[in-house]
Amino acid sequence: MELWFTEEHTPNTRFSLKVKEHLYHAKSEYQTIDVIDTFEFGKVLLLDGMVMLSERDEAGYHEMIVHIPAFTHPSPKRALVVGGGDGGTVRELLKHQTIEAIDMVEIDKMVVETSRVYLPSLSHGFSDQKVNLIFQDGIEFVKDTDKKYDLVLIDSIDPVGAAVGLFARTFYQNVLKCLNEDGIICLQCESSLYDAKISKSSMQRLQGMFPIILPYLSYIPTYPSAQWVFVVGSKKYHPLTDFRADAASKMEADLGYYNCKIHRAAFALPAFLIDYYK
Amino acid sequence: MELWFTEEHTPNTRFSLKVKEHLYHAKSEYQTIDVIDTFEFGKVLLLDGMVMLSERDEAGYHEMIVHIPAFTHPSPKRALVVGGGDGGTVRELLKHQTIEAIDMVEIDKMVVETSRVYLPSLSHGFSDQKVNLIFQDGIEFVKDTDKKYDLVLIDSIDPVGAAVGLFARTFYQNVLKCLNEDGIICLQCESSLYDAKISKSSMQRLQGMFPIILPYLSYIPTYPSAQWVFVVGSKKYHPLTDFRADAASKMEADLGYYNCKIHRAAFALPAFLIDYYK
Repeated sequence: MELWFTEEHTPNTRFSLKVKEHLYHAKSEYQTIDVIDTFEFGKVLLLDGMVMLSERDEAGYHEMIVHIPAFTHPSPKRALVVGGGDGGTVRELLKHQTIEAIDMVEIDKMVVETSRVYLPSLSHGFSDQKVNLIFQDGIEFVKDTDKKYDLVLIDSIDPVGAAVGLFARTFYQNVLKCLNEDGIICLQCESSLYDAKISKSSMQRLQGMFPIILPYLSYIPTYPSAQWVFVVGSKKYHPLTDFRADAASKMEADLGYYNCKIHRAAFALPAFLIDYYK
Repeated sequence: MELWFTEEHTPNTRFSLKVKEHLYHAKSEYQTIDVIDTFEFGKVLLLDGMVMLSERDEAGYHEMIVHIPAFTHPSPKRALVVGGGDGGTVRELLKHQTIEAIDMVEIDKMVVETSRVYLPSLSHGFSDQKVNLIFQDGIEFVKDTDKKYDLVLIDSIDPVGAAVGLFARTFYQNVLKCLNEDGIICLQCESSLYDAKISKSSMQRLQGMFPIILPYLSYIPTYPSAQWVFVVGSKKYHPLTDFRADAASKMEADLGYYNCKIHRAAFALPAFLIDYYK
């Protein structure tokens, strides 16, 4: 018998992974949660049947959402992660010696618990004393908190259902309020090929809030179209001209995707995307 | 009824496209040839059941195999294309005003005929008087010819069956013989994720023949893993320090993928690939 997992990337494209074992299934208050072990990509976390990460290619996501903004800011000390229940983003933040405190606001405690059990290579940072886990809706948290951060990373699920609010202007205004005067926001913005409207509209919503707004790309082969857009909004520092390459180069040996050349190259957009953003 | 085309990208991964219509099927002396019209990627050419190109994303292949070497050489006049039966590589070469003559050596005339009928946006360059179509095995052609070229582009199919010889050292030695003193070879080298051994061994075979050997990447979402490696071997000019950015910038408006920033960014390799090449 062969077991295959198939995800519809669009109504007209599908991606399938051969499965060794279906390790876990649960239904939380918010979504279904599954962990499968695959032949090609190792363990894969699925929320509502969609790939959130695979062990083999998650570096292209977590390293890129963290190190681009973290090596742009001269000395990031306090970070807020919205979402990020698997732990990969927290793990990467902890690699920065300047980091003193990380608040991670995840709506679904069961995702964290699942990752603790099945994805220790991602979740091991949860036990670090710098990390404060808050199980709450990120939208409510940023509205109510009076804390200030150097980095706010929106490591959210796709903008459907409860996560739609994470892509709204009101949410970004509340994030702005939580950022220090030289703070940086970074958000995942879906596929460059299938969902470029999401990164385009996110950049439009950030207009007037941040003097520096830039999209950049990473490569995550288990995600729809394999090319992913992130958008960075920065109050003061520029990801290219203020890039701390010396510090970044010292971290390179510990990383699976990011390096100094990738940092700069990520901001080069292919013609089809430049045309779409016009 | 729904019609789906599925390709096995590895024994453990599959990619599927919803099909509007199966436009053409034939069996040539060398392979099966199919053209399907898909909802997501437009028309798709298949050889032996594998995606060779789609109308939507072929720019990421053809522009990148041509413009990286062509904007590295100061004035490419004569080019040899080995393979390239769909016509995309010839089409991109013809955008360079310095180009005086293109020899395209394709083993399978039926691929050219299929592209002429079903893929005019790729094949229209075949009727240009600068283009000389030669229906012959590329391996034999480079062994026997005494012509000299500025650019040799190996736009071959995957290294199985008849194409294995295109990845052998003897073949590269014969290509070297066909190159002018400042000539450049560029070859497609398969997936960065699934087949990095191919680009690694290609670079090893070029060692000692070319003082400059560099891999670079493009993004082709219908190809296995979506990230593709090309290897450039150059006798004199360096793709980054000799890059003719002014000339390239003037072509940008006509292109779907390549631009000056992409030219430079393509040489930034992710950590997993750098580690593999070590």
